[in-house]
Parts: sequence; C-alpha cells; structure tokens
Amino acid sequence: MSEHIVKAYDDDLASLTSMLAQMGGLAEEQLARSIDALSRRDTKLADRVIQADEKLDAMEVAVEEKAILTIAKRQPMARDLRVIMVAIRIASDLERIGDLAKNIAKRSHAIYDNIPRRLTKGLERMGELSQAQVKLVLDAFAATDDAKALEVWRHDEDIDALYNSIFRELLTYMMEDPRMIGACTHLLFAAKNIERIGDHATNIAENIYYLVNGEVLKEQRPKKDKTSVTPFSAVNND
Amino acid sequence: MSEHIVKAYDDDLASLTSMLAQMGGLAEEQLARSIDALSRRDTKLADRVIQADEKLDAMEVAVEEKAILTIAKRQPMARDLRVIMVAIRIASDLERIGDLAKNIAKRSHAIYDNIPRRLTKGLERMGELSQAQVKLVLDAFAATDDAKALEVWRHDEDIDALYNSIFRELLTYMMEDPRMIGACTHLLFAAKNIERIGDHATNIAENIYYLVNGEVLKEQRPKKDKTSVTPFSAVNND
Repeated sequence: MSEHIVKAYDDDLASLTSMLAQMGGLAEEQLARSIDALSRRDTKLADRVIQADEKLDAMEVAVEEKAILTIAKRQPMARDLRVIMVAIRIASDLERIGDLAKNIAKRSHAIYDNIPRRLTKGLERMGELSQAQVKLVLDAFAATDDAKALEVWRHDEDIDALYNSIFRELLTYMMEDPRMIGACTHLLFAAKNIERIGDHATNIAENIYYLVNGEVLKEQRPKKDKTSVTPFSAVNND
Repeated sequence: MSEHIVKAYDDDLASLTSMLAQMGGLAEEQLARSIDALSRRDTKLADRVIQADEKLDAMEVAVEEKAILTIAKRQPMARDLRVIMVAIRIASDLERIGDLAKNIAKRSHAIYDNIPRRLTKGLERMGELSQAQVKLVLDAFAATDDAKALEVWRHDEDIDALYNSIFRELLTYMMEDPRMIGACTHLLFAAKNIERIGDHATNIAENIYYLVNGEVLKEQRPKKDKTSVTPFSAVNND
C-alpha cells in the first residue's frame, strides 16, 4: 500500500475505535441508569433510558457500515481484518447490553409493590458487578490488553454466583408471600438480564483475546449459573 | 470486474447463501426439539439439543469469516455489499435462536413437577408459532421475497399476544399454588425465550427487506408484549 493509503486506512481504524469507545460509554451509562431507575423505582429516569436506547441501535449500524466499507475500500489482510471483525462483534455486544438495560428500566414501571429492601439490594450488587465488568472490558479494549480482558472473563462467575443466590432468594420469597409473585417475577427477569450483560462483557473479552492472539480462547470458562437446570421444588417441599 | 472474477464472486455468494440455509435448517431443528424436550420432559433429547448447539456457534463463525474474506477479496459495492452484511446479521440471529433453544432444552431438566397440561400446552402453541415464523422467514430469505418477509414481521404480534396470556396465566397459577413456583418460573423463562426467538425471526425479516429495497424498514412494528411494563399486583389484590 502507498503511504497515502496506509494513512487513510489508519484513519479508518482510528475512527472505528473511537466510535466503539463512544458506544461503550453510552452502554455503560445506560446500564448504570437502568439499575438506578429500578432500585429507586424512578420511572422518569427509566423513560430516559428507554428513549436513549435508539442511539445505541443507530451507533451499531454506523459501526457496521464503517467496518464493511473499510474492508471493501482497503482490502486489509490478517490482523487488520481481525480488528474490523472484532469491531463488528463488539458493537453487537454493546447494542445487546443496551437492549437489556432498556428492559431493566422498563421493569421499574412494573414494580410498585413494597419489596423488601434486601431483595433489591442483591440486584444493585449484581448491577455494580456487571458495571465494573463492562467498564474493565472497555478499558481492556482501549488498551488492547488481553491480560485485562482475561481478568474480566474469569470474574464473570462472581455475577453468576450472585445470580444463583438471588434467584433462590426470590423464589423462596415468592413462596412465603404469594402476593409478591408479580413484582418478584420482574426482579427475576431483571436479574437474568444483568447476568446476560455479564456474558456480553465476557464475549467482548474473548474478542479482545482473539484480536491480540489471532486465535480463539480455548479454555472453558467456569460457569456458575446453574439456575436453568435447578429444579426448585427442593426449596419448596412442604 | 473480469468474467473470471465475477464468476468467483458469484460462487462466494452462493456458498454464503448455502451456509445460511444449512444453519437455518439446524436452528429450526434445534428449536423444534427443544420445545419437544420441554413439553415431554425428555431429558435425553434435551441433552442432544444442548450438545448440538456448538455446531451452530461454529457455523456462525464460518459465515462471518467467509463473508469478511469475500469482501476483502472482491471489493463488492452497493447491493453486493448489502448481501454480505445481511448474511453476517442473519447468521448472528440464527446463532441466538440456537442459544435460546439450548436454554429451553436445559429447563426440561428442571421441571419435574406435575405441571398441569394446560400450562405446557400454551408453551407448545407458542413453540409452534415461533417455528412457523422461523421456517417462513428462512423461505423468504431463500427466495429473496420481501413480501413474505413482511408477513413474518407482522405476525410476530401473535406470539407476543400469546406470551402475554401465558405470562399472566403462569403468575396466577403460582399465586394459587405456591408449590409450583419453581417449575412455573422455568416455564416463564422458557416462554420469554420463545418470545425472543420470534423477535429474531422479525430481525431476519427486516434484513430481507433491507436487502431487497436498499433501505431500512421505517414502519413501527405492532408490539403486543407488554409484560415488562405490567404490574401484576392487580392480579393479586387479595
């Protein structure tokens, strides 16, 4: 490639990276606000989160289009191609994090029961963990730091473990007081959404690993979310 | 482009389309089997579904790589670029459908209570609707038929409406018989998964529309899934 083309290509990559950083910032903010809206039942804040989600959708499309045009114009090979592929995937994960945050925000409209503080406390804690994971993985991407990415990847089991315990606690609570079933169901779905946000952070971590090492991460991630295979009648054999 | 290059490029596109058709066939099969496993509590079938999910993951990666390499080698413009972008997106939706089917299958391990037949009946009906939608949208893609795609897009509200009624029915049932809360929670999550499979079918439909018309579908889709904003205390004010 001529120097001119190399320069133009570097500009394309830099602009992709900056688009992703911007998208990551917005996804982080949406996540933080959605947890805040849910735990304080702040429906006005929830509405702002719901409205702002469109921006993330538009940003994903913009990243995708920029990525595809860059490939078509510059015909990059090997590592450069990886950068672009990874950009498309990370944009998709960030867009999904936004969708999940929007869904969490929506549920703050539905929970007007007097839910015991300790139940929403658990969700807030899960929210904090997932926010920290998203922040760390975006830092790892900005620094192309695969060691930091692996750290995120390993810590996802903390979120899964907390999800398990909240899942059980919510079910127990529903059994003790069936009037709370409606509200607790929304909390269950919100907890599941946060757990999945954690999974998207690990997806991004895996992509950073791939970007740096040119091969996919082979190690099996320790999985602690066992809720989908746990029969809960055990909790409940009266 | 020379005739030789055009031919090679057509071959690339044909091979992408055939990879997607194969992936679509597998996603359809996984979905059908997961519903079957759940409604019959067939844990052996469930395990087969869980295992086969890896294949869909690998196929998505293969489609992505083939797509990116085709862009890099052939530098397609306009409509041809759209075909490839759409292929990447559809592969992602099919992979997500597979993930959701896997999660439905997992839950058949957890539901060993004697759940009333009418509750799983509703889920089976949702399963049939979503299977029909996935099948129709894959046909629409194979035929590049945007009218058929729009049909899928419009019919998603039937799944949403059924999801709403199952959601309410399950909550009511849990309130009446708290011993069923564990099992019903798994059915709630399974129903939500099927509802999301419907959303992925409509994503694919939107991409077919974009492929044919070169612009995104502006119309707002009628949304009937209101469960995330419905407080269920109303059902429950004793």
